[in-house]
Amino acid sequence: MIIIGELINGMYKNVNSAIAARDKKIIHELAVDQVKNGASFLDVNVGPYAKNPADDMRWLIETVQEAVDAGVSIDTTKLDVMEAGLRAAKNQPIINSLNADSQKLESMLPLVMRYKAKVIGLTMDRTGIPTDRNQRVEHALKIITACESAGIKMQDVFLDPIVLPVNVAQKQCPEVLASIGDLKVLTDPAPNIMIGLSNVSQGAKQRSLINTVFLIMAVANGVTSAILNPLDKQLMDGLITAELLMNKNIYCDSFLDSYKKNVK
Amino acid sequence: MIIIGELINGMYKNVNSAIAARDKKIIHELAVDQVKNGASFLDVNVGPYAKNPADDMRWLIETVQEAVDAGVSIDTTKLDVMEAGLRAAKNQPIINSLNADSQKLESMLPLVMRYKAKVIGLTMDRTGIPTDRNQRVEHALKIITACESAGIKMQDVFLDPIVLPVNVAQKQCPEVLASIGDLKVLTDPAPNIMIGLSNVSQGAKQRSLINTVFLIMAVANGVTSAILNPLDKQLMDGLITAELLMNKNIYCDSFLDSYKKNVK
Repeated sequence: MIIIGELINGMYKNVNSAIAARDKKIIHELAVDQVKNGASFLDVNVGPYAKNPADDMRWLIETVQEAVDAGVSIDTTKLDVMEAGLRAAKNQPIINSLNADSQKLESMLPLVMRYKAKVIGLTMDRTGIPTDRNQRVEHALKIITACESAGIKMQDVFLDPIVLPVNVAQKQCPEVLASIGDLKVLTDPAPNIMIGLSNVSQGAKQRSLINTVFLIMAVANGVTSAILNPLDKQLMDGLITAELLMNKNIYCDSFLDSYKKNVK
Repeated sequence: MIIIGELINGMYKNVNSAIAARDKKIIHELAVDQVKNGASFLDVNVGPYAKNPADDMRWLIETVQEAVDAGVSIDTTKLDVMEAGLRAAKNQPIINSLNADSQKLESMLPLVMRYKAKVIGLTMDRTGIPTDRNQRVEHALKIITACESAGIKMQDVFLDPIVLPVNVAQKQCPEVLASIGDLKVLTDPAPNIMIGLSNVSQGAKQRSLINTVFLIMAVANGVTSAILNPLDKQLMDGLITAELLMNKNIYCDSFLDSYKKNVK
């Protein structure tokens, strides 16, 4: 499971303040803590309040890289902010994100190629988010075709079937889970399938429980990556156990501690 | 999800003592507690130490039925003990179990028909437990064919792909999960697919966590029934949330309490 840590995001108060004050300490801590708990990439998002988003992105990524070697997932819809992030990234970054919209593909794919990046493809376009698994497959095929034409390897493509909140779009939850299996068989070798996990519990009660159970079900369906909070112990224990039961890690009595020691 | 409570089993010290002393109180409590927490059937097993297993089974079932209306799952390999249980059962019982062995089918199917019972079919025969999902399907087909020939409705058949302990048979865990999907499509309408959950963590540490995660993954794969401990709060919260995310129960902020109120 490729874990992308979600905590360096300007929508959180502590990160927003750190960006405004150019306070490196909080960013360093968030980077180290997430990597210690299993993240191999860190999502970086300047948030909705940024006054100089391109410069904020550059500063955030440089600051993250002072603390850890993990790759960054550059999370923005703006082309200039994405470029600022790509220029600052030392290791292979993830472009987060493009989708099946033709204009989006045309503007983003040259960046994926120029910076030899990995890329997240949301299975949607400008008409909106699909309501069922079949529409997700249609969008995914358009993304895959464009990526293959551009010479991007499938191991660098992360298809995201778009998780929606259970409290407002409950019917979509099983559709997203089922679509994970659909998307895996579109190419051989398969693309990565990822989910933006926390969205499933947006606005709901029992957020950690809902996130944990949805992630376990996604693992049962073959998901290979997730953006999540690696500091949520219940969530990580559920994930480690799910991978154990899928026979991905070898059982020992101390399987939880053993996993944690290996990522540190 | 059809929950079959597992706690009335003579292998547990408290139940074994209760049987020996004909002490009804502990059996009544175990019956009521399990039903209150979601069980619609109660597994009844006299355990390995019974001196008069047929009479013990009769007494256990009569005692259970004094306390609750739930059906019983009569859990024994012995034909005379099964018959004693069937004679004592008031509501439609479950015969636990037969398997794909021809002699077993010949001896058990007449009982299923005579008592209009439901029946659990283990996907194994006298050569042993299968090592992969395909062998499980072969055994299931033999059981289904025999049941259909005997005029038993598929809604009364519970196929059990046989869960094995993760600490000694880890490779079997994903095979069992995958086989759930395989078994569901063998007939239309589909048979019930059930698991004997607690076996997955037999001898392991973190038993409740392993049971909970395996059950959530089984729900993601379409399991419709499980023998489990309904008094395990972590397990039941995981199950309720998994069914929520499969869109089986409607979301409300108090979805955990709401489920519990409905089963009481």
